[in-house]
Amino acid sequence: MRIALDAMGGDYAPATTVEGAIEALLENKDISVILVGDEGEISLELKRRNYSGLPISIKHASQTVEMDESPLTALRRKKDSSLRVAINLVKSNDADAMVSAGNSGVVMATALHVLGKIPGIERPAIAAVMPTFKGKFILIDAGANVDCKPVHLYQFAIMGEAYSRYIFNIDSPRIGLLGIGEEDAKGNELTRETFKLLKNSRVNFTGNVEGKDIFAGEADVVVCDGFVGNIALKISEGLAETMAKMLKREISEKASGRLGYLFFKGALKNFRKKTDYSEYGGAPLLGINKPCIISHGRSTSKAIKNALKVAADIHSKGVLSVISDEFGKELSRGETVAFKE
Amino acid sequence: MRIALDAMGGDYAPATTVEGAIEALLENKDISVILVGDEGEISLELKRRNYSGLPISIKHASQTVEMDESPLTALRRKKDSSLRVAINLVKSNDADAMVSAGNSGVVMATALHVLGKIPGIERPAIAAVMPTFKGKFILIDAGANVDCKPVHLYQFAIMGEAYSRYIFNIDSPRIGLLGIGEEDAKGNELTRETFKLLKNSRVNFTGNVEGKDIFAGEADVVVCDGFVGNIALKISEGLAETMAKMLKREISEKASGRLGYLFFKGALKNFRKKTDYSEYGGAPLLGINKPCIISHGRSTSKAIKNALKVAADIHSKGVLSVISDEFGKELSRGETVAFKE
Repeated sequence: MRIALDAMGGDYAPATTVEGAIEALLENKDISVILVGDEGEISLELKRRNYSGLPISIKHASQTVEMDESPLTALRRKKDSSLRVAINLVKSNDADAMVSAGNSGVVMATALHVLGKIPGIERPAIAAVMPTFKGKFILIDAGANVDCKPVHLYQFAIMGEAYSRYIFNIDSPRIGLLGIGEEDAKGNELTRETFKLLKNSRVNFTGNVEGKDIFAGEADVVVCDGFVGNIALKISEGLAETMAKMLKREISEKASGRLGYLFFKGALKNFRKKTDYSEYGGAPLLGINKPCIISHGRSTSKAIKNALKVAADIHSKGVLSVISDEFGKELSRGETVAFKE
Repeated sequence: MRIALDAMGGDYAPATTVEGAIEALLENKDISVILVGDEGEISLELKRRNYSGLPISIKHASQTVEMDESPLTALRRKKDSSLRVAINLVKSNDADAMVSAGNSGVVMATALHVLGKIPGIERPAIAAVMPTFKGKFILIDAGANVDCKPVHLYQFAIMGEAYSRYIFNIDSPRIGLLGIGEEDAKGNELTRETFKLLKNSRVNFTGNVEGKDIFAGEADVVVCDGFVGNIALKISEGLAETMAKMLKREISEKASGRLGYLFFKGALKNFRKKTDYSEYGGAPLLGINKPCIISHGRSTSKAIKNALKVAADIHSKGVLSVISDEFGKELSRGETVAFKE
């Protein structure tokens, strides 16, 4: 399986992208990676590392998308960006999937423009994986669509369900609607309408789920609009980091704490691993015709490695065909409320 | 200063409310508390404790509002509820402020119905205090209004600013708009419009603030609609609890961790104190004519004690007159964009 990696995307690229690609290839014999971006810079990074015998190649691209660039500008003026060229490789069937840690708005717009949507899907969405006390859950949409209609959230639920079933092997994933109270009538206009759609759908809808319960593992798929989802994601990241920093400060302020820290280190490390976004690597843009994975702008090489694994998983398990079949069925029946707007 | 306490509100009432009132009175010589609710039950709780000499009294109310009751039902059928009677005491000037850990939707609706709004304010909002690495910030609205217009968010900013200035003594509070990117154009329809209003206002508006930055202390007042705010609040609570539980599990799984825990305990306790909602006690319903404080449904006696302190602070520092003056000025000028809808 061939994965195109936007080697210039992310705050620490191309060092982290090249390193992450090598790590992924050492662990997975089934994949090959095409590093897309400035040939000179990438070669330099490759020369610093031992990659002999690994199925790695370079595809030159002369431009780079900036983190604060608008999707429209990038689409118009960056036709030879590392991101665009990586996506083009998927379009021309020279790659099976694409990974980028670059500007996520531009990744979304370019993927949509070049690769298009799975028929029947109105809006592709970002499916992020988050840790719970017992395992993990999928948050969809984690930031692709800021203003949504009920039908969009309904479709996110269907896509998230397929992802949960095929990637995490959950038989009948529990779908929760992110809200502010467990009762049916609680929520805003958008969630109250979405509640009705999900209640009448075939998915295992467990009702509204509150922010305080998602980390306890009360749902396998948490559905929300991309504005709320992105805030939920970023608040979780920010709070986890701040809590770790506060804990460290507390420790360093006390002699007994310092002593305890020596014993405590292992536990803290394990704990951090469970709450570290880089363990999950990347979030797929579900609804796009081909596997496109968005990785965190601050991605480390480990995050890139794991994002490449996510891309490989989605491709090999045929998640997109499953989603395509689901929506194809709905379209051919032409009966579901979800398509009446 | 006389505070009416809904003695039957909250999951562990009246034990926690009676205990919390006694704790508050022992620490503050300036306040007296009227415990409102079932006289028999309250007397029983009082008899179990030593409260001799404290300015505490009981006002009987025959009904209690349930946690899952709808505001409309409660308003119609619970005219002698502990909550309603407590609010009536403020209305009739027999109390200066009110505290309840009961059903927050009903507190909001009843306060609005009985006490009314400060002139010029369209929607009262919940101002919750949250911890940061360095101090704290105010989140407004934390859950009172699920569907908002830009003018509402603008007004929340003005009220939050007054609260921050007078209660936390911050000269020129930094007002941030909770969003999904720092650039002006990022966000949803609601925040993009609100951004323009705040940019043209007299407050110290520092622009959009992302979820990951609020706990780092990048704003003193974080403005959002009540749906997003409630989710932000509950996610923070849930994640903090889950992280503490994960950490504890890690510790108990390792012998070295267990040993470390003995040394580590003090640091952990301090840390928990900083992230414990009960330290902040209660959130005022800003925009209501009189001080009304909503406390967490799971309030402990410490949370009730601290909520009573918040009520006393708001009354003694005249926060509501400040807000009233602000909006009076805007109304008399009749010029601000915020009132054109």
